[in-house]
Amino acid sequence: MKVFLAEIIQKVYQQKITPDEALKHLQDFPYQELSFAKVDHARELRKGSPEVIFGQGKTPEQLIKIAKAILEKGSNLLITRLSPEVYQKIKRQLPGGTYHKEARCLMAVRTKAPEGKGRVVVLSAGTSDIPVAEEAALTCEFFGNEVDRIYDVGVAGLHRLLNHYEQIKQARVLIVVAGMEGALPSVVAGLFRAPVIAVPTSVGYGASFHGLSALLAMLNSCPGGVAVVNIDNGFGAGYLASLINHL
Amino acid sequence: MKVFLAEIIQKVYQQKITPDEALKHLQDFPYQELSFAKVDHARELRKGSPEVIFGQGKTPEQLIKIAKAILEKGSNLLITRLSPEVYQKIKRQLPGGTYHKEARCLMAVRTKAPEGKGRVVVLSAGTSDIPVAEEAALTCEFFGNEVDRIYDVGVAGLHRLLNHYEQIKQARVLIVVAGMEGALPSVVAGLFRAPVIAVPTSVGYGASFHGLSALLAMLNSCPGGVAVVNIDNGFGAGYLASLINHL
Amino acid sequence: MKVFLAEIIQKVYQQKITPDEALKHLQDFPYQELSFAKVDHARELRKGSPEVIFGQGKTPEQLIKIAKAILEKGSNLLITRLSPEVYQKIKRQLPGGTYHKEARCLMAVRTKAPEGKGRVVVLSAGTSDIPVAEEAALTCEFFGNEVDRIYDVGVAGLHRLLNHYEQIKQARVLIVVAGMEGALPSVVAGLFRAPVIAVPTSVGYGASFHGLSALLAMLNSCPGGVAVVNIDNGFGAGYLASLINHL
Amino acid sequence: MKVFLAEIIQKVYQQKITPDEALKHLQDFPYQELSFAKVDHARELRKGSPEVIFGQGKTPEQLIKIAKAILEKGSNLLITRLSPEVYQKIKRQLPGGTYHKEARCLMAVRTKAPEGKGRVVVLSAGTSDIPVAEEAALTCEFFGNEVDRIYDVGVAGLHRLLNHYEQIKQARVLIVVAGMEGALPSVVAGLFRAPVIAVPTSVGYGASFHGLSALLAMLNSCPGGVAVVNIDNGFGAGYLASLINHL
Amino acid sequence: MKVFLAEIIQKVYQQKITPDEALKHLQDFPYQELSFAKVDHARELRKGSPEVIFGQGKTPEQLIKIAKAILEKGSNLLITRLSPEVYQKIKRQLPGGTYHKEARCLMAVRTKAPEGKGRVVVLSAGTSDIPVAEEAALTCEFFGNEVDRIYDVGVAGLHRLLNHYEQIKQARVLIVVAGMEGALPSVVAGLFRAPVIAVPTSVGYGASFHGLSALLAMLNSCPGGVAVVNIDNGFGAGYLASLINHL
Amino acid sequence: MKVFLAEIIQKVYQQKITPDEALKHLQDFPYQELSFAKVDHARELRKGSPEVIFGQGKTPEQLIKIAKAILEKGSNLLITRLSPEVYQKIKRQLPGGTYHKEARCLMAVRTKAPEGKGRVVVLSAGTSDIPVAEEAALTCEFFGNEVDRIYDVGVAGLHRLLNHYEQIKQARVLIVVAGMEGALPSVVAGLFRAPVIAVPTSVGYGASFHGLSALLAMLNSCPGGVAVVNIDNGFGAGYLASLINHL
Amino acid sequence: MKVFLAEIIQKVYQQKITPDEALKHLQDFPYQELSFAKVDHARELRKGSPEVIFGQGKTPEQLIKIAKAILEKGSNLLITRLSPEVYQKIKRQLPGGTYHKEARCLMAVRTKAPEGKGRVVVLSAGTSDIPVAEEAALTCEFFGNEVDRIYDVGVAGLHRLLNHYEQIKQARVLIVVAGMEGALPSVVAGLFRAPVIAVPTSVGYGASFHGLSALLAMLNSCPGGVAVVNIDNGFGAGYLASLINHL
Amino acid sequence: MKVFLAEIIQKVYQQKITPDEALKHLQDFPYQELSFAKVDHARELRKGSPEVIFGQGKTPEQLIKIAKAILEKGSNLLITRLSPEVYQKIKRQLPGGTYHKEARCLMAVRTKAPEGKGRVVVLSAGTSDIPVAEEAALTCEFFGNEVDRIYDVGVAGLHRLLNHYEQIKQARVLIVVAGMEGALPSVVAGLFRAPVIAVPTSVGYGASFHGLSALLAMLNSCPGGVAVVNIDNGFGAGYLASLINHL
Repeated sequence: MKVFLAEIIQKVYQQKITPDEALKHLQDFPYQELSFAKVDHARELRKGSPEVIFGQGKTPEQLIKIAKAILEKGSNLLITRLSPEVYQKIKRQLPGGTYHKEARCLMAVRTKAPEGKGRVVVLSAGTSDIPVAEEAALTCEFFGNEVDRIYDVGVAGLHRLLNHYEQIKQARVLIVVAGMEGALPSVVAGLFRAPVIAVPTSVGYGASFHGLSALLAMLNSCPGGVAVVNIDNGFGAGYLASLINHL
Repeated sequence: MKVFLAEIIQKVYQQKITPDEALKHLQDFPYQELSFAKVDHARELRKGSPEVIFGQGKTPEQLIKIAKAILEKGSNLLITRLSPEVYQKIKRQLPGGTYHKEARCLMAVRTKAPEGKGRVVVLSAGTSDIPVAEEAALTCEFFGNEVDRIYDVGVAGLHRLLNHYEQIKQARVLIVVAGMEGALPSVVAGLFRAPVIAVPTSVGYGASFHGLSALLAMLNSCPGGVAVVNIDNGFGAGYLASLINHL
Repeated sequence: MKVFLAEIIQKVYQQKITPDEALKHLQDFPYQELSFAKVDHARELRKGSPEVIFGQGKTPEQLIKIAKAILEKGSNLLITRLSPEVYQKIKRQLPGGTYHKEARCLMAVRTKAPEGKGRVVVLSAGTSDIPVAEEAALTCEFFGNEVDRIYDVGVAGLHRLLNHYEQIKQARVLIVVAGMEGALPSVVAGLFRAPVIAVPTSVGYGASFHGLSALLAMLNSCPGGVAVVNIDNGFGAGYLASLINHL
Repeated sequence: MKVFLAEIIQKVYQQKITPDEALKHLQDFPYQELSFAKVDHARELRKGSPEVIFGQGKTPEQLIKIAKAILEKGSNLLITRLSPEVYQKIKRQLPGGTYHKEARCLMAVRTKAPEGKGRVVVLSAGTSDIPVAEEAALTCEFFGNEVDRIYDVGVAGLHRLLNHYEQIKQARVLIVVAGMEGALPSVVAGLFRAPVIAVPTSVGYGASFHGLSALLAMLNSCPGGVAVVNIDNGFGAGYLASLINHL
Repeated sequence: MKVFLAEIIQKVYQQKITPDEALKHLQDFPYQELSFAKVDHARELRKGSPEVIFGQGKTPEQLIKIAKAILEKGSNLLITRLSPEVYQKIKRQLPGGTYHKEARCLMAVRTKAPEGKGRVVVLSAGTSDIPVAEEAALTCEFFGNEVDRIYDVGVAGLHRLLNHYEQIKQARVLIVVAGMEGALPSVVAGLFRAPVIAVPTSVGYGASFHGLSALLAMLNSCPGGVAVVNIDNGFGAGYLASLINHL
Repeated sequence: MKVFLAEIIQKVYQQKITPDEALKHLQDFPYQELSFAKVDHARELRKGSPEVIFGQGKTPEQLIKIAKAILEKGSNLLITRLSPEVYQKIKRQLPGGTYHKEARCLMAVRTKAPEGKGRVVVLSAGTSDIPVAEEAALTCEFFGNEVDRIYDVGVAGLHRLLNHYEQIKQARVLIVVAGMEGALPSVVAGLFRAPVIAVPTSVGYGASFHGLSALLAMLNSCPGGVAVVNIDNGFGAGYLASLINHL
Repeated sequence: MKVFLAEIIQKVYQQKITPDEALKHLQDFPYQELSFAKVDHARELRKGSPEVIFGQGKTPEQLIKIAKAILEKGSNLLITRLSPEVYQKIKRQLPGGTYHKEARCLMAVRTKAPEGKGRVVVLSAGTSDIPVAEEAALTCEFFGNEVDRIYDVGVAGLHRLLNHYEQIKQARVLIVVAGMEGALPSVVAGLFRAPVIAVPTSVGYGASFHGLSALLAMLNSCPGGVAVVNIDNGFGAGYLASLINHL
Repeated sequence: MKVFLAEIIQKVYQQKITPDEALKHLQDFPYQELSFAKVDHARELRKGSPEVIFGQGKTPEQLIKIAKAILEKGSNLLITRLSPEVYQKIKRQLPGGTYHKEARCLMAVRTKAPEGKGRVVVLSAGTSDIPVAEEAALTCEFFGNEVDRIYDVGVAGLHRLLNHYEQIKQARVLIVVAGMEGALPSVVAGLFRAPVIAVPTSVGYGASFHGLSALLAMLNSCPGGVAVVNIDNGFGAGYLASLINHL
């Protein structure tokens, strides 16, 4: 942006353009710059220009329109929270995308995203947590990270977790997904050194209160190195893990 | 009770007492019997006659009065939730008792309680959970159980728990005390076979919400074999463990 | 496990195997052992090898696959939270099982489980609590316990409970299931000596808040000897009762 | 009131007063009337003119000022939620009053209130609930009702309640005070026919959540005939019981 | 009951029966008596023998079976929370009943219930609260009370309430039904002298939290004379109002 | 109202009407007046007589009946919370109305409402918040206000908000609609001077708890000048904005 | 701001400054502008330059330092939430201020604030709500508004409110302060036409849950024209009322 | 560890030790190894051996004992949540430590920790959030990170945040601390690219519910790249930021 501003001023100084012409160029300057800066950000961050649409609560028409705009710019496309029903309605209009049923994501990758520096390991406590874990894992992959998936290693059978000790130790970032009592992130953070992004899920019944129980447990995690995202927010965990893994 | 009723009727049949005298004896019969039955219960259950006073919210005068009544019957005495301040005020009147500062209990054991069949192992996640764990452990001992204490073995350092693997395996009943994320009972129930009585504590801050977080986690415990008592209810856990250990 | 380790070392000492071969055998040793220990547990605990599947949230395909694996090992099978709709879809593939509609369980018992030492008595406060009570009772039976069912004896008509006084007194373990105000476990624990496992149900409306009201009441139970499992968790109560009854 | 309006209009018709004078008399008519009606109410309701001050949160100066105004009108005086500390500060200024320490009430009765038609029976579950129960009982007495107190008859020992069966059966209105699991009103309403006013107390700890647990239990009371007032609101229960007992 | 006991003893004294025969008669005595007492209660209370079934959560088969048993005894029948769909399935089997669609009640009255002493006035804040109000009103009528219905008089237009001032003043008992902010019972209790039974409804959206907002408001009602039943519990309010109106 | 009273009294004084006739006119006077006053209010406030129906929970028959009554008086009509399904059922009976699908409102404006003094600007954080924002905007327009809509300017991309800096600065009243973290009203109130009416929406998932998260955030807004309405209450915000804009 | 930019460019064009000098002037341009705009805002808004300090949680030293800085600029000073204890510590350093004990505010007004256009009327439901109401009223006065205080007019005695009918009708903005059931704003909004800013207070006990009950009631207010601020936030209500009253 | 195992086996193979001796060496092998691994971890992670004590709830004696043990090992020392009162009691025994009053931390750094790769920027919304922010910042520094502090840049005055645009842009990790509405992390994550660790604080009153409001807002953060730690958990945020910054 500074370059742009400097050029304008240089031209004024050289009297190649009049002050009025300069002002016209600059008229939305402060807000525009911020806007540009932001776009700039995005460009640096997500080389290959991936953009993400939160599919839930959008109509098929809206989804098609936004997705086409992204694809026309030649960007990669990720739609999260896309139900199979809505996918059926839009798939003809969006050829070239792959729909991941379990994670309920649609992806179309045209340009490989810049590679993350290490591996992200995604763990899930139970099999019912897999859809959220998959959303996290696919998000990581979409943004250029290599991902290991280790599922169904909850605290009910700790040996299952320990069997993957060496593999988990290799992770640069850990995503730990659990419902019910939400104890897995605490156990993992007690055993391993990588930063842990904890994802509570709404899996459970009764006093799980749709994920509240797991959420609170994770926030109160005794070992250090754990931070928490919203209930069922696989995308948020994957996106943050990618940010960290690209540092 | 039936014996009592049979005797009355026998005496009537033998005309040793009149129907009116019989009715007078029997007038509060149904409730009385229940009352007797209850006392009977108590007697069988707690041979050596231990009785327990919940000290919190009682004045020194009330405590002394109730405690003396118990001691005069020759029974064992346990006062829980007795603050050091109140203890100072009553100790002269209750000679022969031992005050456990950490658990805030006063105990006076005159007759050994009937022995439990196995060992109760009491685990605590952190050092701050020890007062509640001690209340549980002392309650168990008061009711005639041998107790192993294994403290500060929370999930932040799982190896500390595993170091006690063999000892925990010997338990007939497990009491697991934890605050914050309350994950320890789930981990323990996943590794060991004995029934687990989980005690959430109010240890923590922020989103622990005075023990709510730990409570919910324990109720949602994924492995089977766990049941939960009220927050900070060490006595309740110890009493239940004793019931089970005397089966 | 120690036997296994000793054998390996003996063979090395006798130079029947080389150090490299020994290390290969031992390479996943610490985790493997834990894993073996766990299986060991399971074997001792559940002679006749019953295994349990939580049916809710699993697809028919997943259920059939897991169930077949269990049956092929010759184990007993219990699927809980199995809706009639899903049962219709899987029943052809799992011949020999009995579906309990009210408790929404599928059971296939091939080898009798080891017998519990006493009787488990399951009480329910209302008729609407029966599905949860049945899940508890069937779970107990699946694990080898004799069960008495006493239903619809809530505090609205205490005489109904008292009519079963003698029968309840015989119980080694009590499971008490109640929704709404959740008062029954407190009343039962005040009258009887056996340990009480309290199961809150989501039966009720308005300020029952889907079982929260009953849950809180049970956690605050004034008489000792009560512990609580998750809302509607009949299986958890039955499993814990069986653990205690096999002590 | 209609009489008052008719008189004014009659006087206007007879030209004893001018329209302007009439309007002056009538200017605050609608509100005034309501106000009069209200006072009327009060007078009819509480013959002997008892008035009640909620003491909590008022300064000694405010209390003295309001109390003196009431006493000067010759009315009876009841101050609730009056701490011993504040009582010490105001007692000299309010001679003739009796302070009830446990219920934290000050009463000065000059004229006997009109008698209620039957007896109000106040039950409390535990000894810690007695301050709230006493507030209820004294309020009843203040408004002219005969009161039976039956304390410490909670569900932990049901026989204690049943021992008072006949006495409770005589009640025209029942007030049932309980903390912790709040089960007593349900049990009482299941056994007796009189309307039950349930008062949850903040007695308890942990998951009692300062009376929330008892409150919810009482609202979900399974047997009919129960209504609930605010946590610790002994005055509210006593006042309502008196209203009903004077019907 | 005492008569029964006296007769047995008299027969023993007269040696018309042996002690063993007497004991056989008396064996379940304490519980039996309670049971009889209870039935006795019921009979006195509900002359004409009305019995009530909570329809929600019961199958058509269960409803028909219970209802027929009641009708065969010649009793009056009230089924509450009966959806139109279920009513369609059972109506042929239960001729002679009247279905009230709005209140979702089925009633069959064969013998007039004993008359209440005064009028019950049922007020509702909004039109959406009418189903709950109607459940209350019909319950009152079922138990023999005359009922005035005054609907849609919420605090948004206070004049609507005041227009019914005289009529409300005649009530012996008031039932006030409101959702949303739940302010109407407070306003009514401030204006009128009769006891107020407040019924919060789940009418509202957002921060009404399914009736929690109205419930809390009613529990905190500033003017005295208000007690509260569960959210949407029209039956409970009607039943309690009838108890009071028959005093 | 005073005029009305004065006229009656004047007529009595002049003996044009008898006292009885006067009383008949005046019989419901106090309440009537209030009622008139209220209507008066309404008339002044909403010249052109717009009336509003809350459509949710009303049957098609009820809606048609109320709407026709309004239209027959020649008033403007606004039905909020009208689902497309119900609209289909009533539209033939209510010709001349325009249905706004997104805001789920039906409007029929016959007489232009009195104009507000400035512009109301309605901002929404996301596209999913638009239905609530539209309800607010249409309500404002219905009551005679000019409205600017600025949608999808949430804090995730602050530059989008700043791009509208000048336009927002012109607002006399701001309505800010947001779900999820509900941060937009705080940001807006920190930047602009107009009063902000904040509307939390139920948009979100997991720990948004159906709008609770946004609601709490808005209530805790750090910059001054913000007040909050119920979750999803677009109408309430629009109505209040109109009141302020007509001052 | 545009002027500032135009001037710089003009100077460059006239070569009075070099491009580098221009860039230095402009380097923080977008943020700087925003910052200036803000100050500008403040100046316009609060002529006489009043500034407000939230006293709670600040040390006496911090308060003195900030207050002196404000006073040295010649501005008016308002410190809210200033406890008497802290006031004692700082009063010597801040001569010329008036401390309002009940509202816990310190005010020093040097220049009269610009006058609001109408009157603000502040109503409180009870006497215990007065501190919050006073904070609101004094805030209004500090910002140049004339205020009427009408206290202790809660719904327990509606006639007290109606007695002030004419006075309230004159208000341009209404602030309604209430704790407990929080019903007063709904009643006021149903009777009067001015916008209502509702302030829930933490006055109450038990199920008032420190103001939650009143807060929820106010958010669910049935009549339109009500918006809500945080619990006990008298300042926020006063500030918003002033904004509206200066429109 | 494998080395250790290989050596033992080699010695057995070479018959330098007997199988029994080998088994004795290996007997606690699996748990021991895990334990070693953990220590290993710690050593790698925190070169210079910093160890951290959570001071809250520990007695002065406990603190001195643990701290001395750490210092004797030559490690760095950090005690968090150390009140000034307790610090006074222990400071003589722990010479060489620096007490940070605002953050309530005691630090003694003997060996410089390994340097983080970039800068951590800690932002706070208000001045009252500074203690928590300082705890985070000091924790970062203790673990070897360079930290920029930017305090009091909450959303009430966005320009203050934007004034630090360039400085914040340099951050490798961002810690954002806020109470009340908790909006700052969302705004920051919308503007900057670094991962954001959000720390809700208990700063606020009323509906902030001791930090719940800020916590929920942060969990629902609309822009990606945000994860949340417990309320007031400055240490947790600093520790996690350090982990990330050392990647």
